[in-house]
Amino acid sequence: MNTLGERALSWCDELAELTQTPGLMDRRYLTREHRLANDKVAGWMQEIGLQTWQDEAGNQWGRLPAANPEAPTVVIGSHLDTVPNGGIYDGILGVVLPLLVIETLKQDGVTLPFHLDLVGFGDEEGTRFGATLLGSRAIAGTWDAKWETLNDANGQSLPEAFETFGLSYNEVSKAARTATPPIAFLEMHIEQGPVLESEDLPVGIVTAIAGARRFTIELTGMAGHAGTVPMHLRQDALAAAAEITLIVERVAREHGVVATVGRMSAQPGAVNVIAGQASFSLDIRSEQDSERDAALTMIWDTARVACHERGIQMQWQETHTAPAVSCADHLQLALASAIEAEGIRPRYLVSGAGHDAMAMAALCPVAMLFMRCEKGISHHPDEAVTAEDVDVTGKVLRGWIEALAREPARVG
Amino acid sequence: MNTLGERALSWCDELAELTQTPGLMDRRYLTREHRLANDKVAGWMQEIGLQTWQDEAGNQWGRLPAANPEAPTVVIGSHLDTVPNGGIYDGILGVVLPLLVIETLKQDGVTLPFHLDLVGFGDEEGTRFGATLLGSRAIAGTWDAKWETLNDANGQSLPEAFETFGLSYNEVSKAARTATPPIAFLEMHIEQGPVLESEDLPVGIVTAIAGARRFTIELTGMAGHAGTVPMHLRQDALAAAAEITLIVERVAREHGVVATVGRMSAQPGAVNVIAGQASFSLDIRSEQDSERDAALTMIWDTARVACHERGIQMQWQETHTAPAVSCADHLQLALASAIEAEGIRPRYLVSGAGHDAMAMAALCPVAMLFMRCEKGISHHPDEAVTAEDVDVTGKVLRGWIEALAREPARVG
Repeated sequence: MNTLGERALSWCDELAELTQTPGLMDRRYLTREHRLANDKVAGWMQEIGLQTWQDEAGNQWGRLPAANPEAPTVVIGSHLDTVPNGGIYDGILGVVLPLLVIETLKQDGVTLPFHLDLVGFGDEEGTRFGATLLGSRAIAGTWDAKWETLNDANGQSLPEAFETFGLSYNEVSKAARTATPPIAFLEMHIEQGPVLESEDLPVGIVTAIAGARRFTIELTGMAGHAGTVPMHLRQDALAAAAEITLIVERVAREHGVVATVGRMSAQPGAVNVIAGQASFSLDIRSEQDSERDAALTMIWDTARVACHERGIQMQWQETHTAPAVSCADHLQLALASAIEAEGIRPRYLVSGAGHDAMAMAALCPVAMLFMRCEKGISHHPDEAVTAEDVDVTGKVLRGWIEALAREPARVG
Repeated sequence: MNTLGERALSWCDELAELTQTPGLMDRRYLTREHRLANDKVAGWMQEIGLQTWQDEAGNQWGRLPAANPEAPTVVIGSHLDTVPNGGIYDGILGVVLPLLVIETLKQDGVTLPFHLDLVGFGDEEGTRFGATLLGSRAIAGTWDAKWETLNDANGQSLPEAFETFGLSYNEVSKAARTATPPIAFLEMHIEQGPVLESEDLPVGIVTAIAGARRFTIELTGMAGHAGTVPMHLRQDALAAAAEITLIVERVAREHGVVATVGRMSAQPGAVNVIAGQASFSLDIRSEQDSERDAALTMIWDTARVACHERGIQMQWQETHTAPAVSCADHLQLALASAIEAEGIRPRYLVSGAGHDAMAMAALCPVAMLFMRCEKGISHHPDEAVTAEDVDVTGKVLRGWIEALAREPARVG
């Protein structure tokens, strides 16, 4: 008899076969493989006895109904799409595992004071049309009218892709659950980071999804001959970029945020020429927008002094900004009691990556349960989890559902 | 009546018209424009009354003979080739200005106890065939047999280019002056650096031509998600590269050498991914090879500790090495007395760039006189000098020649 964890992994393997690029995991929004994945998941839902439907944005739903049709709704889910050459668990495990957990509820005859909806979002990664979170934003009622003009790499527009998929773009607003919002949304996802592994914990409770800001920084100094310009007469743009990179690292540590310089180049970029210009990127995130922005202010202030001392001009341009999203306290507490019930220390951590829960937070209180993944790797074929961890995570999910069911005041 | 400086600049303007790429300065070895430049310079030499010849490597010579045919020879000169889109003074002024100085010696009826040879080297920059200093190495007798296989960008071999130019590659060894070496070589060149300008001096005495070593450094850490990997769990290859860049800068200052990181890249090089790999260049130079190598040892030792603390693997590969070349003390002293005679403080400095004098040092004692250039710019259309500086430099050149003539013991 296979464990819940083993069954979940074998279902992930089955879904991994639905890939638009043979030999690697690649399933994007509104493709044939999206259709096949929805059908596969819907089939499993029906076998378990759930009501199923696909909404107007291509999200796949299944429902374990409450006895009372007027009962509120709790939603659990994650996304069924992947990045090109991605892993087979990122998102997908957050649909498959809750489905198997709901099966155990059915088998055990558990009745809930709320409808329990399971959703597989059609698009989170945004790899087909550039914009991310299309599935969950349709449900949250925050679909962006500008998306009508988006095209994929083959020139097919988003409305055309809706038609090809068998949907009508004009009806996408009907996917919104804003009229009677759920009372809670829970997303279970692999951590995509090394924290749980480094602390030998299978699961963790997300306190917030970090808000990221991104910048491109341009430095201008003076190009010069590497042999003829003495050190004290240089205006070396690459040395200044190096100094600012270390400032970013130090300030991030001091402020408890994460900040990354991931890209750097120097012009003219020759071995024997002092760089006259340097360009690099900055990505900075925190669960608290105020902490993040305070760290940024410290970075700019310190960098300005360094540039002044070096005779370097600094310019920066913001290329992306998103606010942090907090997870609901009472939903975090329910996760903590479910985790403690498994004899595990509750570990609270921030999600540095974006998730569907960010979009769903516009609709209802949200929570996220992270599961350990090997070396924190995601978006890569090496993405890996253990059946044991999946098993424990399934028990925590069930514990969370039952904790909510025991607290009618909170869920009503 | 134009000054010597003004005449020298107008001759440089004339030579600037001999360019293989219209609209920019570009004159390479063994081209039609090399031929025309040699002819132009030879014509000026003949007008002044010098004996002229072109040697077997395409170098243009002119001689002011001593009364005694058995007298030794002093050589002055620089190169007539340029980099593509270069300046019109780098090298060229070191041929034109001495020619005008020799004219004044002739006019004043000065007799010298040595033959005074002026040479315009055909190739110093190496931009046509990749190898540098072809002209001066032919004269110094250090022509490399492997150069026979060099090709230019159009696939023409060096021996073919000799034929096209009207030379015979098999006779290049006849250009060597090794049988009766000169007793001194002096090269006058623009500084290509900012030291003289920053100290408000028109000229400076080169003590040595720095020996450069160059490296490519590869760092390997661990790529990761910019949002999900906490600062203390990162192995950020780009942050390590930044730290080593600042180590290079600090150690160079402490050791009195020049060292440059001019090129840097990170992989995968995305704004939201911690760099798993970084690659950068290092160029380090000193007038003392031992000082340079001591600084290098300090750089590697310090970088190794930094990498160890960061969990980063470091590998480096040496891509170039050349020893430093010292200028002869007695020739430097003769320059100093000529400079003092003009009421200028002698400023001794190292040449960080390579020069024909490096090759000529294999043949005879060498000296170099640097002249101030605007902002230290060279190899660029903005290369600029003033007629006043050229005038003073001409007086120093004449003073140097006469100083040598007054010291028969030294020159004999």
